[in-house]
Amino acid sequence: MAASTDTDAIVRADADDFWSQFPAGGQRELVRAAFERFAAVGFAATTTREIASTAGLSPAAMYAWFPSKAALLAALSRAGHRAAHDVIDTSLAAGTPRLQRLVDTIGAFAAWHAHHPRIARVVQYELAHLEPDAYADVAALRRGMQGRIADEITELVACGEADVPDVSGVARALLSLCIDVCRWFDPAGARTPEEIGQLYRELALRCLAPAHAG
Amino acid sequence: MAASTDTDAIVRADADDFWSQFPAGGQRELVRAAFERFAAVGFAATTTREIASTAGLSPAAMYAWFPSKAALLAALSRAGHRAAHDVIDTSLAAGTPRLQRLVDTIGAFAAWHAHHPRIARVVQYELAHLEPDAYADVAALRRGMQGRIADEITELVACGEADVPDVSGVARALLSLCIDVCRWFDPAGARTPEEIGQLYRELALRCLAPAHAG
Repeated sequence: MAASTDTDAIVRADADDFWSQFPAGGQRELVRAAFERFAAVGFAATTTREIASTAGLSPAAMYAWFPSKAALLAALSRAGHRAAHDVIDTSLAAGTPRLQRLVDTIGAFAAWHAHHPRIARVVQYELAHLEPDAYADVAALRRGMQGRIADEITELVACGEADVPDVSGVARALLSLCIDVCRWFDPAGARTPEEIGQLYRELALRCLAPAHAG
Repeated sequence: MAASTDTDAIVRADADDFWSQFPAGGQRELVRAAFERFAAVGFAATTTREIASTAGLSPAAMYAWFPSKAALLAALSRAGHRAAHDVIDTSLAAGTPRLQRLVDTIGAFAAWHAHHPRIARVVQYELAHLEPDAYADVAALRRGMQGRIADEITELVACGEADVPDVSGVARALLSLCIDVCRWFDPAGARTPEEIGQLYRELALRCLAPAHAG
């Protein structure tokens, strides 16, 4: 029932693992500083001067790496979407039966959003501020995630293991359910990310294959 | 299967109906202006001067009605939460059997978020900027909505019509699923708000009572 060890490592990854993908030094400090400002007040209310000063750099030093705050948002958004995509890819690569693998993946995707709600919120809620090239990259990753889930549902329907009224609508609904965890999840609340993942795994099973649930 | 006429009227209400609850004139213009700015750039990036000038008023005239932009957010957030709460109250007052009434309510709540995504986004994503009194009011409305859904599920479980692993977790998950519609719903997309409502009604039925679904 549990996610694979590989998926689990991605879902529970320390935030430091997320930041370690950016080159150490000024570049990483700038991305982290931008993230902290975007998470606190949003992209529109953040100035490049604040980002630079939070990172302990001058605005001129910042421009050596990032031409604008939109470039910082693009770096964050690409990295956040790639991390979310990795959860799905890794979980769907498990060697378990197809229906189990898919519902485990939905559970893992929910748990990832509970483990990383601040990164997920910046990534989800600031999309409108991306410039066209970055938006196109991120939109491709988003379509890729939904497409992978829809493809799995299509296969399950074809072999009689799932029964849904609308494949792409259900794929989007299941991802949407998981993404919204980042809006309300409270690490001090009653349930752990893994408990949320387990509940959402069960709900996904019911949505996909009511005859197998209950 | 369809929502009651009363619920339908609330779900499909014209945006003008939403604004008509504020006294006509400067007060309504200020709330609408604040909404437009918050929806476009967020609360933190909006200045009271911009709100007043969008409403065609001086900042001094604004202060006659609203002491701060936080007071404008409070008015919007209270009204938006009351509107969402109304959907649930009205739909749960229908005379249909309890399980049908509850899944119709989830469908109506999803459709409301598809009809009013901009209002819903301001209401959902700016909560952290509410001052304590307004936050307390809104938190009570939020607990009220989740509590009403959880109470209905509890009754359904007690009479054997629903079977869920975690009543409050499922109540929150179903509301969360509907709320997230406001993040991604595109009026130009493939599905109408009513089609989203119908799909989510079916998913709610599966989550609550898999034996009745499919």
